Amino acid sequence: MNCSIITIGDEILIGQIVDTNSATIAQMLGEVGVRVVWRVTVGDGAEQIRSAVSEAMERTPLVIITGGLGPTKDDITKTTLAEMFGSRLVRHEPTYRAVEQMMRSRGIEFNELNQGQALVPECAEVLTNRNGTAPGMWFNSEGRVVVSLPGVPFEMEALMREEVVPRVKEHFALRSVVHRTMITFGLAESMLAERIAPWEEALPEWLHLAYLPSPRQLRLRLSAYEVAAEVAEAEIDRRFAELEVILADYFVGYGEQTVAGAVAEMLVARGATLACAESCTGGALSSRFTAEAGASAYFVGSVVSYSNDVKINVLGVRAEDIAAHGAVSREVAEQMAEGVRRVCGADYAIATTGIAGPDGGTPTKPVGTVWIAVATPEGVTAQLYHGGKLRSVNIERSSTAAINMLRLVLTKSSGL
Amino acid sequence: MNCSIITIGDEILIGQIVDTNSATIAQMLGEVGVRVVWRVTVGDGAEQIRSAVSEAMERTPLVIITGGLGPTKDDITKTTLAEMFGSRLVRHEPTYRAVEQMMRSRGIEFNELNQGQALVPECAEVLTNRNGTAPGMWFNSEGRVVVSLPGVPFEMEALMREEVVPRVKEHFALRSVVHRTMITFGLAESMLAERIAPWEEALPEWLHLAYLPSPRQLRLRLSAYEVAAEVAEAEIDRRFAELEVILADYFVGYGEQTVAGAVAEMLVARGATLACAESCTGGALSSRFTAEAGASAYFVGSVVSYSNDVKINVLGVRAEDIAAHGAVSREVAEQMAEGVRRVCGADYAIATTGIAGPDGGTPTKPVGTVWIAVATPEGVTAQLYHGGKLRSVNIERSSTAAINMLRLVLTKSSGL
Repeated sequence: MNCSIITIGDEILIGQIVDTNSATIAQMLGEVGVRVVWRVTVGDGAEQIRSAVSEAMERTPLVIITGGLGPTKDDITKTTLAEMFGSRLVRHEPTYRAVEQMMRSRGIEFNELNQGQALVPECAEVLTNRNGTAPGMWFNSEGRVVVSLPGVPFEMEALMREEVVPRVKEHFALRSVVHRTMITFGLAESMLAERIAPWEEALPEWLHLAYLPSPRQLRLRLSAYEVAAEVAEAEIDRRFAELEVILADYFVGYGEQTVAGAVAEMLVARGATLACAESCTGGALSSRFTAEAGASAYFVGSVVSYSNDVKINVLGVRAEDIAAHGAVSREVAEQMAEGVRRVCGADYAIATTGIAGPDGGTPTKPVGTVWIAVATPEGVTAQLYHGGKLRSVNIERSSTAAINMLRLVLTKSSGL
Repeated sequence: MNCSIITIGDEILIGQIVDTNSATIAQMLGEVGVRVVWRVTVGDGAEQIRSAVSEAMERTPLVIITGGLGPTKDDITKTTLAEMFGSRLVRHEPTYRAVEQMMRSRGIEFNELNQGQALVPECAEVLTNRNGTAPGMWFNSEGRVVVSLPGVPFEMEALMREEVVPRVKEHFALRSVVHRTMITFGLAESMLAERIAPWEEALPEWLHLAYLPSPRQLRLRLSAYEVAAEVAEAEIDRRFAELEVILADYFVGYGEQTVAGAVAEMLVARGATLACAESCTGGALSSRFTAEAGASAYFVGSVVSYSNDVKINVLGVRAEDIAAHGAVSREVAEQMAEGVRRVCGADYAIATTGIAGPDGGTPTKPVGTVWIAVATPEGVTAQLYHGGKLRSVNIERSSTAAINMLRLVLTKSSGL
């Protein structure tokens, strides 16, 4: 089962934004066994859109289009598709009411442009967009399915998950594919590959292993395409159970688990609370916990002590230690962790202090040097970490390393 | 002057990696007046590559290809192009010697696969790759130029800058293109479009306006393709100057400016400092400032007061006010801002307290309700904001709204 993806927008063509939608769509379709074989990007022009859609329909039975559905006049995807499929635009009442309410609740005038968002080609099946004003559209034409989605990534992603993927599975009567993902952290891809090579060699032919690296974790996915679901699932269970033993501390969890999520689960299970003290990570570490619903069950708060004064006055770090060892030091990291644990009244605390870059490095403490500390009811420990030279990557990596340090502490201790 | 981009690789098609090369190439070409009008991604198959290259050559006089030049057998771009252009592969001596030396210095065996990197189609002009083993190639065929580059981003980028762009400018005797971007915030796309409609109508035909929305800002881009650069720039200056007046407070800046960047510039110019108190944004607000280098010039710190205890004990919020008005209220937001300003010793402070969702909403305070407050040396103000129902979007939007509230306060006051 093959698919094409068309992304529409001058801003993508000229490189003002990077197209991440295509990769998201390809991944989501890949999970149900649909393979993307052609991807094209065209500008906001009717002829370009028509020619791309025609070509895609010749190539594959499923075509996913994103972009060009905004309310302004440079967005012409909808009118172009209506023309192509010989259909007039009609008002879709549920969308009209939803957009009206959305505008009202956000204090935005419900004007002609917004009302236009509720117009859809008569032949299209409307896919309700709960997160924006542009509805998705599903067209059946000449035995092909053409789906048009808004280009805003989170709107597109929700529509894919809630509407498109389930309909595609049903419409094309897809064979089931079993995918399972294991989350690991702490071993680089090449080292992990070496460590698990004998296990990988022993996998049956029909189980395919993929490495999915990212700055926050390294995921390992097993996929079975040719085998009954129960057989595949039992085999994957067995193989992953072996791998858990091989990976030991590097094993974090399964599926959508994250390093922060594993910490959250352990804290909630123990009825324990967490606070953070952040210097170089500047709020990013805390936001990794608070990004997930339910964080208030264990997360009590943080102090971002960017200046030395805040380290000293709010967290109680000793000024003499900053003078003697520098703000990026074991002593300061440990006192930050202990300080925020006390100030916020938490059971556990994490602290980071480092040189995020691009400036501020020295020969003994180059850019990327980060001290991370974990304070527990039993005491405090710290370790040195190197997050790399690029500021954004450094902040992301050292946040993850700090969370993982707490994960290992929690894994090795049984209770509060 | 138009161009096509072809990216080659199964890993891009299936979404395992995001294609950033296309955007990089389009930006670099855009700066010299080459407009990308077609972009396609195909897998590592000879027939797919051939058909994409033929189609691109029909569409545009310049075709840039990236990827598929590695040493392993799934990389077939070079042999496919050699066949297409009726040319045999010959050894390129300078590349052979360079690859040999590169391998030796990195302690890697100079084997048959690596030696193959020095083979190039006889008809191609070689573009020296100083950062890797795969040379770039420049083909002239039937009045078209086809350029093949490695897919590794930093190798591709160096080749574009050092070899491709200078040759393209000379070969096609290029006219220049002018793009300029204005950053706005606070008006939704549809309302902004309505407000600037008369201005937009009056633009000369050769100036093209594009709306580039994102959760953090709405960008407006003017592009001039047909006119001498000085004329275009003068006209854009004049039109954008008019627009600044029309947009008033909604105007943030130009180019790569952001709402947070505008605040940072104003604070640094006044020698003033900033602290944040975050509840629902949970660290994300602070990270918007600390993500940029140089934040320590004005940003002193934050308190993420997720629990009521931290609000009361660290920030000095009155427990009676939490009991009377709830943690999501004007009173608490204002006391958080005042509290963190005092605790961190900052000149200005921002605070957020809201219901990030998905749970915790009530009929009077639904999910998405956020109170934001700004404290200054003169006093404190707060306003109610609605960030929407999706947790991640809500956090992002309310962070931006809070930063923008401070931007407006700073714009309206002249000094500390």
